[in-house]
Amino acid sequence: MIRTHGAGTLRAADAGQSVVLAGWVARRRDHGGVAFVDLRDATGVAQVVIRDEILAAGGAHDLRNEYCIAVNGVVELRPEGNANPDLPTGEIEVAATSIEVLNPSAPLPFQIDERVTVGEEARLKYRYLDLRRPAPAAAIRLRSKVNQAARSVLLDRDFIEIETPTLTRSTPEGARDFLVPARLKPGSWYALPQSPQLFKQLLMVAGMERYFQIARCYRDEDFRADRQPEFTQLDIEMSFVDQDDIIELGEALATAIWALIGYQVTTPFSRITYADAMERYGTDKPDLRFETEITDLTGFFAETQFRVFQADYVGAVVMPGGASQPRRTFDAWQEFAKQRGHRGLAYVTYAEDGTLGGPVAKNISETERAGLAAAVSAQPGDCVFFAAGARRGAQALLGATRLEIGRRCGLIDQSQWSFVWVVDAPLFEPASEAVAAGDVAVGSGAWTAVHHAFTSPKPESLDTFDTDPGSALAYAYDLVCNGNEIGGGSIRIHRRDIQERVFAVMGLSAEEAQSKFGFLLDAFQFGAPPHGGIAFGWDRICALLSGSDSIRDVIAFPKSGGGVDPLTDAPAPITAAQRKEAGVDAKPAS
Amino acid sequence: MIRTHGAGTLRAADAGQSVVLAGWVARRRDHGGVAFVDLRDATGVAQVVIRDEILAAGGAHDLRNEYCIAVNGVVELRPEGNANPDLPTGEIEVAATSIEVLNPSAPLPFQIDERVTVGEEARLKYRYLDLRRPAPAAAIRLRSKVNQAARSVLLDRDFIEIETPTLTRSTPEGARDFLVPARLKPGSWYALPQSPQLFKQLLMVAGMERYFQIARCYRDEDFRADRQPEFTQLDIEMSFVDQDDIIELGEALATAIWALIGYQVTTPFSRITYADAMERYGTDKPDLRFETEITDLTGFFAETQFRVFQADYVGAVVMPGGASQPRRTFDAWQEFAKQRGHRGLAYVTYAEDGTLGGPVAKNISETERAGLAAAVSAQPGDCVFFAAGARRGAQALLGATRLEIGRRCGLIDQSQWSFVWVVDAPLFEPASEAVAAGDVAVGSGAWTAVHHAFTSPKPESLDTFDTDPGSALAYAYDLVCNGNEIGGGSIRIHRRDIQERVFAVMGLSAEEAQSKFGFLLDAFQFGAPPHGGIAFGWDRICALLSGSDSIRDVIAFPKSGGGVDPLTDAPAPITAAQRKEAGVDAKPAS
Repeated sequence: MIRTHGAGTLRAADAGQSVVLAGWVARRRDHGGVAFVDLRDATGVAQVVIRDEILAAGGAHDLRNEYCIAVNGVVELRPEGNANPDLPTGEIEVAATSIEVLNPSAPLPFQIDERVTVGEEARLKYRYLDLRRPAPAAAIRLRSKVNQAARSVLLDRDFIEIETPTLTRSTPEGARDFLVPARLKPGSWYALPQSPQLFKQLLMVAGMERYFQIARCYRDEDFRADRQPEFTQLDIEMSFVDQDDIIELGEALATAIWALIGYQVTTPFSRITYADAMERYGTDKPDLRFETEITDLTGFFAETQFRVFQADYVGAVVMPGGASQPRRTFDAWQEFAKQRGHRGLAYVTYAEDGTLGGPVAKNISETERAGLAAAVSAQPGDCVFFAAGARRGAQALLGATRLEIGRRCGLIDQSQWSFVWVVDAPLFEPASEAVAAGDVAVGSGAWTAVHHAFTSPKPESLDTFDTDPGSALAYAYDLVCNGNEIGGGSIRIHRRDIQERVFAVMGLSAEEAQSKFGFLLDAFQFGAPPHGGIAFGWDRICALLSGSDSIRDVIAFPKSGGGVDPLTDAPAPITAAQRKEAGVDAKPAS
Repeated sequence: MIRTHGAGTLRAADAGQSVVLAGWVARRRDHGGVAFVDLRDATGVAQVVIRDEILAAGGAHDLRNEYCIAVNGVVELRPEGNANPDLPTGEIEVAATSIEVLNPSAPLPFQIDERVTVGEEARLKYRYLDLRRPAPAAAIRLRSKVNQAARSVLLDRDFIEIETPTLTRSTPEGARDFLVPARLKPGSWYALPQSPQLFKQLLMVAGMERYFQIARCYRDEDFRADRQPEFTQLDIEMSFVDQDDIIELGEALATAIWALIGYQVTTPFSRITYADAMERYGTDKPDLRFETEITDLTGFFAETQFRVFQADYVGAVVMPGGASQPRRTFDAWQEFAKQRGHRGLAYVTYAEDGTLGGPVAKNISETERAGLAAAVSAQPGDCVFFAAGARRGAQALLGATRLEIGRRCGLIDQSQWSFVWVVDAPLFEPASEAVAAGDVAVGSGAWTAVHHAFTSPKPESLDTFDTDPGSALAYAYDLVCNGNEIGGGSIRIHRRDIQERVFAVMGLSAEEAQSKFGFLLDAFQFGAPPHGGIAFGWDRICALLSGSDSIRDVIAFPKSGGGVDPLTDAPAPITAAQRKEAGVDAKPAS
């Protein structure tokens, strides 16, 4: 090693010690023929004192920020009164006896300083400079610790870490596949896996019983909202288990992981059914850090004369103190609803004197006006927001409104961590809804899987899921933290006949099923064990733990919008020769 | 959990205990109205005794091998004299009180039995059955332990585990890239990384100082000799280090990993220069489990009249007792040489009575005949094989001959592990040789890098590597175990000017260098630290440890020849719609 000590490890007890440090110039001040240099390395920062003649001898007169240097010197206590209590090394400084410039630095595109705000494009283009800043570096370091904490839990429970292929066959899990031409089999293509789903199930058939992998996954989506084309999940599968076993394991993992940031998780986490979550919070990933709930007013308005509320569903959510919002804020709420595909957001203000205001108040009956506050538990000064229409859509708008209320009214305790398992989701949803949401349907049927095609129906739905797909429940469980889905899994189908029936509901003919999934159906014939698993969104979990707004902050080299890496400028055009050689234009052998 | 105990964990002390087991029928024998079933799970095997009426009650009369079952029962000591000392559970059996068939099994394509030989194509097509056999399962389980042992060493030394992108830009490292069309940037393509080389170097520029990753890598090669299109390496990079630091780390890793199979590695490993390895063993990955060396006879034959030996180089290797090989064996040796691109393999037999035989003996002079045995240290009864011609080519033939001698004469102690570092390799080789060997040259120059373009010249070659590329030494080190290269690394270039000079030697113009590697050259300008690293071939190491002949045995779902997965049948044709959507045929925006 070029160095003998980490700069950040030096303490008063090291005084008198000869040391060699190596790192970067974080700051240089000159005073009276002496340069005071903050030398930064991975362990921290120490002050190095370099007399001008030593600078000169090392050819380092032009020493600037981010020069990479090695310094020989002696640790000394700082002069009386000069100690810096804010710095772990603040009691000492290193008196340099020689300096070597290992590599100079050109002028920086931005300062390596927590306090400087830098645009994301510049941060990503110069990610190697961005990562020299404390917070970005800490996020990457924390992620490494998260990996180890999770592995430790899993290895203690006899899990086996197994790598699954990434040059594989398309597995339809709701998104587009990335494709790779196979030069040696012209006209054929590999797909990059959306998850190791089928391989981990095959490992259960293989008798591995307990599998895990921190797995790279790929989805060719439109990079909406903080998605990355490649992302990472902690992927787990177990045999001979029931839902409670996986849930217990998930809680053990969360406990170990949140302990890394000093938070003691309380287990067991509460559970809520999908139906309940939609009714009460208008979302399948409720943020339970605040109590506000949606009120179902369908019955309350059953006899209403107000056309807008003559709907399948009417619901409301209350904004505490919301009556006093200015007119332009109510206009903004309309915009908020329109951006979510709704016509607007009906509301009634409930003034301090008890009178109701806003456009809706005039349209509802005297009785409705009189009973409303009690029905929604509104207090004088509150505002009541309404949504009416198809149940799920209206609830979703109320759910979004609830969240926005939580933010605007400061109802969310940012220091709190709220975990909840969402269970008993529907097994199927209308394929039209999935496609509208940008997903890829597996078959041509009217129904598609909410989780994926390999999720088992709950035992009570086993006989009826194909005759009444809309009512069937999935044997699935999602883990939600502060309104983010951070994990999801299910008990899987392990019998060929049930898997075939599920495929049939999704509109896959027996031939299509055999052609696309024959290897899985075949595997189920050879004593496939009951099994289930879960996958945790590793980028999201690391972002939550590090207090990052975006998963990009916990990825060493993330893509920006459009899937471009501003650093390497990938993706890039290929040459005609590459194209030819890769067999891109070959037709498959027939 | 469906089960209460692992089958393989039951012991005599458990007698009297009620248990639930779940697993697979490994064997069934019927005797006197009772079925004796070997029940296998991940922990081992236990004998379960099931009376016919209990079988019938569980609908399990047709119980066959590989049925997946759950059994309720009571642990009992086996009757006097019936214990099986070969089985950890051999003192007990489980008297079943009920049985449930969790999933039946169709007739098997091959028996789940160590003793049955199965063709590889069938093993891979039914990999989920193959992995139920003890040896294939053990190899996968061992691999998981190897991961943990390596991580433990690295984490103890403050390394950070960091994931690097796999949808990235082509990095020329000697092979073809796999390509991925970028739908959102039509006409542009990602490349799958041949290694994380450039990203790990950028992480050093970022000040991460100690990086590791068990990384998936991709090379689109012709699947010669036990290669896989996707493979795994333990990838490591450190800042502020010298060669000795990386070598010490590599030895610590080998020590921890080989301890998993109960082998105590002796460190430090010996080191040999590339030149020495070629001279003495005819290869840059010498198998040092046996001592046989090549003798340089160029001087000895300096004045020879024998035309074949009037060459730049003449060398020989001795086969103990080889004089008595039958004529057809000597013919086979000629074939052996021809397959390696040589005209034949000259030889002289040295009979027990001291006379020399074989075609060459007649062609060399009396003096040469008289001195030969002493020159090569041959004993009566030995055979001396010769190669003459261009030095490296002739040495390579002698190296292959040496290995074959080692095998045929039983000189190789199969229980031994021999580690050696090969250092001081050439920095460059003629580009024509690399291309002839199937590699892809980075530039259009006469020279290309032996390791890769980012390897630093040794300090003594820094001034002259571009004026005399053929003599320059690389600051590189390869770890060889029993003749297999299991790791390789180098101290990297960290200065822009040196990197530019290396690119220039390889025939990259300044414009090409900036266009392909501008991001790296730019990064070097901002105080890039001195750094170096290493990558270990994880598949090969796991194969060695598990005693596997092929890396396919330590990959859960390997590809067979031609890059095909016989299980999923990947790669597969894509539809016209997929092709269109992926933007395969788009021309790049100009």
